[in-house]
Amino acid sequence: MTTTTRALATPAPGAPFEPVTIERRALRPNDVRIKIAYAGICHSDIHQAREEWGSVLFPMVPGHEIAGEVTEIGEGVTAYRIGDRVGVGCMVDSCGECAMCTADHENFCTGRTIWTYNDTYPDGEPALGGYSQEIVVAEEFVLRIPEQIPLDVAAPLLCAGVTVYTPLKRWGAGPGKKVAVIGMGGLGHMAVKIAAAMGAEVTVLSQTMSKEADGREFGASDYRATADGTAFKELRGTFDVIINTVSVDVPLDRYLGMLRPFGAVVNVGLPTNPQQVRISSLIGGDKVLTGSNIGGIAITQEMLDFCAEHGIAATIETIDADEVDKAYDRVVDSDVRYRFVIDVSTIPAE
Amino acid sequence: MTTTTRALATPAPGAPFEPVTIERRALRPNDVRIKIAYAGICHSDIHQAREEWGSVLFPMVPGHEIAGEVTEIGEGVTAYRIGDRVGVGCMVDSCGECAMCTADHENFCTGRTIWTYNDTYPDGEPALGGYSQEIVVAEEFVLRIPEQIPLDVAAPLLCAGVTVYTPLKRWGAGPGKKVAVIGMGGLGHMAVKIAAAMGAEVTVLSQTMSKEADGREFGASDYRATADGTAFKELRGTFDVIINTVSVDVPLDRYLGMLRPFGAVVNVGLPTNPQQVRISSLIGGDKVLTGSNIGGIAITQEMLDFCAEHGIAATIETIDADEVDKAYDRVVDSDVRYRFVIDVSTIPAE
Repeated sequence: MTTTTRALATPAPGAPFEPVTIERRALRPNDVRIKIAYAGICHSDIHQAREEWGSVLFPMVPGHEIAGEVTEIGEGVTAYRIGDRVGVGCMVDSCGECAMCTADHENFCTGRTIWTYNDTYPDGEPALGGYSQEIVVAEEFVLRIPEQIPLDVAAPLLCAGVTVYTPLKRWGAGPGKKVAVIGMGGLGHMAVKIAAAMGAEVTVLSQTMSKEADGREFGASDYRATADGTAFKELRGTFDVIINTVSVDVPLDRYLGMLRPFGAVVNVGLPTNPQQVRISSLIGGDKVLTGSNIGGIAITQEMLDFCAEHGIAATIETIDADEVDKAYDRVVDSDVRYRFVIDVSTIPAE
Repeated sequence: MTTTTRALATPAPGAPFEPVTIERRALRPNDVRIKIAYAGICHSDIHQAREEWGSVLFPMVPGHEIAGEVTEIGEGVTAYRIGDRVGVGCMVDSCGECAMCTADHENFCTGRTIWTYNDTYPDGEPALGGYSQEIVVAEEFVLRIPEQIPLDVAAPLLCAGVTVYTPLKRWGAGPGKKVAVIGMGGLGHMAVKIAAAMGAEVTVLSQTMSKEADGREFGASDYRATADGTAFKELRGTFDVIINTVSVDVPLDRYLGMLRPFGAVVNVGLPTNPQQVRISSLIGGDKVLTGSNIGGIAITQEMLDFCAEHGIAATIETIDADEVDKAYDRVVDSDVRYRFVIDVSTIPAE
């Protein structure tokens, strides 16, 4: 039986959020119905709600950092039971059969990844996200949130956490390695915590020193302002991995110069302009310029378990439903420490 | 005792080569004296002889694709004996103690790599290269040329061979993998042969179809002209590794679009202009843009042994000493199939 639930929707690009009632599908055999407790606000929610990344679907219910509890399971569900603490990230379905899906990279499904919002299932059902009180998701795309992690600080791990965990793992962050994190916002603060928990020596590269105390508390052993340019000289040839979490134009050659041979600059923020790079910056030292786009379901679960084991989670500001518009402006102004999480129980009736 | 030997030197940027007599040092305990038989002409010889890559040292004796025979050994030499078939590549010394040297990456020595020519040893001895009849090199920087490979077709392996072998190995060329090679010149033809020998399925991406028959003989199973742009659409999402051997401006985003997720575009050619790249081309599919600069001594030996085992070597045009100036012009015009090798026995007395 379909159900209805309260949600926050934006009807048009940049329009204020308003409470709406949306429908969730009747359970298929492999579906899990989840009562959502918290939904994180990701910068990509804002880009899409404001139609800054190309044409999108309205009305939009954003939210792909979802934490809650299982309230009902389909007859074929084996992995979850009622009452389980669970999360949903950026994806809710994929083809399951292509080379990418069978290799646990559902995020690069060559059939059809269904994103958690701003997307449509093959049967026409709109994908509506986590700024709501209930969601129905196939169990293969549901994550288990370990008992050690409270649901509110778990929510941002579902996107921000895996976005930085995946490249830190791929490019070898760990004991004996030096990692730099450019920008300490929602993604950056998780990169610092996770890289430090992996055993790497972590440096934050920020515009200013304003968040230094937090950075060191999150696990950074060094914190540098890059605005005056001296850090590029002093830290030349230093890092094995640099995670770039910012979305503005970046001087790639200067950051590549901070790498040791074989090191990697990994972009997880998405500037809109093309960037310039000298091929000599890559050839000298066999250096890597790359990007990373979230991660598959298996590595997302691995990241949650890793965070539980190391006692880390997001640092958040919890807000009510009526504060979302203001929160969007504050995210754009980098005025959040370090992720907004919506308490969706505060979504009013229409 | 120091010796003298005949060589070809250029006295000034772009000036014709002339026969000269140069001195080679008395053997140190770990030195090997080599009678050179052949020296390949690498495009980087031309860039340096014409002072196109910044200030260089004149008179210059280029040549870092050297094949010959041991004629004398220092008292401490253990790896080589008189009569051994040997080669010398791009380096003749390094600090031996830094993290890069001790990890077999002498090419990225943070102390001081001594390049085979256009460089100076710490004691002031000029490094003069392979366009000569004799050279003295520390045994640690001497390679063994397997019996199966004739010296003339072995010479280009010392630079062109290792330049493409290193990234093909690092980025996983092998059975089940699809490799594209951009440009089929000196580097490109070796990339095709080595990638095919590694078991990969190889496609050549060339401006025209003029070298298709050769490409297929070297091991390519597909050969495409890129000038009209259709290849970028037809081969979208196809390759695991693309080796870019050309030095002109390249449409990096279009080549990145030809990669499968996690694939790598590796640049071994060095365009002088900065290049443009969209970060979205990297984030979509966690793709890699990188460069590769030759390889250490251990991987150079591994490459030589691999080529012997698989019955491959360079395809060359052998020239006499008086043809070098003309050969330089032909290399610049891409008019060589596929590497010029100088028979240094033809260098006349002054």
